[in-house]
Amino acid sequence: MSLHALPQDKLSRLHEDALRQYRELQRKGLSLDLTRGKPGPQQLDLADAMEEALEGKFVEDSTDLRNYGGLEGLASARQLGAEILGTDSADVIAGGNSSLSLMYLTVLFAWQFGPADKSPAWKESPAHFLCPVPGYDRHFSICEEFDIGMIGVPMTGQGPDMDRVEALIRNDDRIRGMWCVPKYSNPTGAVYSDETVDRIARLGKTAHPGFRVLWDNAYAVHDLCEPAPILAGIGEACRRHGTEDSVIQFASTSKITRAGSGLAWLAASEKNRASFLRHLGKFTIGPDKINQARHSRFLPGLNAVREHMKKHAAILKPRFDCVLEILDGELGPEYGSWSRPEGGYFVSFDSLPGNAAEIIRLAKELGVSLTPAGSAFPYRKDPEDKNIRLAPTFPSLDELRQAMEAFVVCVRLATVKSLLKPAGHG
Amino acid sequence: MSLHALPQDKLSRLHEDALRQYRELQRKGLSLDLTRGKPGPQQLDLADAMEEALEGKFVEDSTDLRNYGGLEGLASARQLGAEILGTDSADVIAGGNSSLSLMYLTVLFAWQFGPADKSPAWKESPAHFLCPVPGYDRHFSICEEFDIGMIGVPMTGQGPDMDRVEALIRNDDRIRGMWCVPKYSNPTGAVYSDETVDRIARLGKTAHPGFRVLWDNAYAVHDLCEPAPILAGIGEACRRHGTEDSVIQFASTSKITRAGSGLAWLAASEKNRASFLRHLGKFTIGPDKINQARHSRFLPGLNAVREHMKKHAAILKPRFDCVLEILDGELGPEYGSWSRPEGGYFVSFDSLPGNAAEIIRLAKELGVSLTPAGSAFPYRKDPEDKNIRLAPTFPSLDELRQAMEAFVVCVRLATVKSLLKPAGHG
Repeated sequence: MSLHALPQDKLSRLHEDALRQYRELQRKGLSLDLTRGKPGPQQLDLADAMEEALEGKFVEDSTDLRNYGGLEGLASARQLGAEILGTDSADVIAGGNSSLSLMYLTVLFAWQFGPADKSPAWKESPAHFLCPVPGYDRHFSICEEFDIGMIGVPMTGQGPDMDRVEALIRNDDRIRGMWCVPKYSNPTGAVYSDETVDRIARLGKTAHPGFRVLWDNAYAVHDLCEPAPILAGIGEACRRHGTEDSVIQFASTSKITRAGSGLAWLAASEKNRASFLRHLGKFTIGPDKINQARHSRFLPGLNAVREHMKKHAAILKPRFDCVLEILDGELGPEYGSWSRPEGGYFVSFDSLPGNAAEIIRLAKELGVSLTPAGSAFPYRKDPEDKNIRLAPTFPSLDELRQAMEAFVVCVRLATVKSLLKPAGHG
Repeated sequence: MSLHALPQDKLSRLHEDALRQYRELQRKGLSLDLTRGKPGPQQLDLADAMEEALEGKFVEDSTDLRNYGGLEGLASARQLGAEILGTDSADVIAGGNSSLSLMYLTVLFAWQFGPADKSPAWKESPAHFLCPVPGYDRHFSICEEFDIGMIGVPMTGQGPDMDRVEALIRNDDRIRGMWCVPKYSNPTGAVYSDETVDRIARLGKTAHPGFRVLWDNAYAVHDLCEPAPILAGIGEACRRHGTEDSVIQFASTSKITRAGSGLAWLAASEKNRASFLRHLGKFTIGPDKINQARHSRFLPGLNAVREHMKKHAAILKPRFDCVLEILDGELGPEYGSWSRPEGGYFVSFDSLPGNAAEIIRLAKELGVSLTPAGSAFPYRKDPEDKNIRLAPTFPSLDELRQAMEAFVVCVRLATVKSLLKPAGHG
């Protein structure tokens, strides 16, 4: 039954219960962290053998891996990226250790010179981006650096609300881009439906010619369940609609091999690639080809990647199960709702509106760090103050259990408190 | 004796001789390359053992090298950079595989937000840079990307002509930066004198507060001779004059360990570092700490670096000797002048004014690639058309000898031709 319908004396009792539990937890002096989507040490162990993958062989395609050059990246590394992204290796640029950096440079170059070196440069107009929310804070930070306005679009279970997206594209000619995490979206876990992918590919037909979808396929192979959902190919869809220039894809091995020492890719049309490379050549002489070869030899093709990701899933699935067990067991829909992701790195929790910041504050006082309120929204403002991103991958299973048990107590306490004193909160 | 003084019939004979030699070379069908400052394979072999340096130990200072984080870089990597740059490790940020990228980002951030996040951002004024010439083409390309005007300042044997630099700083308030390669300057090989270093450190006292010297110490430990010249510490000099914010230093291991898979550093004042890191954090989550640890374990301290660089010198010294032997033996001052570097990667050749492009064209027709005419100048314009950068490191000694023998023939042919027909050249 809804908590709203409870008489105040029953709410008072619930509040006392929650407060008592909270105080017990306070005495424990916890120190736990559910903030960032970092792989855990066991996951990282899985790639330690990569260190031996080169076997002293530093030549590939008659290229000395140890010397300068090869701005597009090593052929074998481009091939690996193509298989993970489901595209052609000719479309792929293999970069350094960060897909975030490739996205940043993509925005910088379009902002400074115009997408595909065509006017108007984004800086000349007050460029705006569509930002499906909740979304990834680091995407939004890039927009802020370049003063690109951000327009939130709500996520559904099928991806962004496409009616809204299409209406905005139709009616607002300042829109130059859109962030997408199409598979196991950060943080909701949604996988874009075939229809959503198709409608996104069609945007390029009506949008401003300088419009670019930045398709951050960060969790392309990060499945937890079998059979895994299949994301439709955005590249194919674009070819079908003749909008190849409107989408730029990204991926990395940060959560496949090593976080920070992985390999990142960009895949795009010939025009977009040519322009990107022209400017990339001013930024760097070339990527770390030795690390690229380490990767392509350690993971020779998609089957090897899939086998490797099963080992990750075996480590991660119990963690996600633990989060859902505790949420399902301890909280009913009267306290909020939460995602049931089939892959990726997060569980997204929505409290009753107006409670997220207070839950996060309560947890912090217990020694449980949660991603700051509003993080998943442009300008760090969650309009309903309800979204909390839970990142279960890094802590041990035992720490995770303790953190989640504390979390649900904080949710109960904040929720009941908000109903007890419905007015007067700052 | 000067060729100018020769009667035309003697010049004609010289021309015929040179032409005959040139035609003989044409029949050889050479294919040689003296363009870029790349280490040779033997040099790269020197660091192959780095691949085993980790010995499976992925933890340092209780940091898991395999995970995200550590924007400033690993402590041991910062320490290594500090020793190479002769500065304090607290001043140092250890980055990725490219000091060029660190310089690019430094310019970008100052351009977009202002140096040390202080107005005016460089983009708001028509920012200009002083560019000692001849200099490094990739520095100039960064300026071009951001529409930063470039003002050439001639190099002397002691560094840039400081009278000119000081006068420009005094009289032109658009100047926001200056490129420097202070040791074994690219391409002249000059080492900035103690006085030059001191005068550069003093510039910050009178220059615009947004002025920054980008001190690219690319060849800090790349000595060929003993005792090696010692570059005065720019950091100390700045502290002496209270101008710590006016200089940002860079270095890398691209020509110590591996080109493209090395380690790059930035060293700067606290204010400059804080601002750089604030924006760097939007660009990346952190550097490749595993590769940083490979480096700091393979080269534990400056003594190890110096020992390693002696092995490079043993490979490179005979190459530089070969270039100088052939230039000294085959050409007199009537054909041009050339540098006698004690380290670094280049020999700088100055033909008689007006001949460089023709020499490069003649060489190309023989199958000998030289850096394109004008490369070492802003906007690729050598005002006197005389400078040619020779890069002797990459070819084998035998290839180098052949290339240099062809080069001197081209120099003689172009020079004599220019005197035979002093007018009418395009």
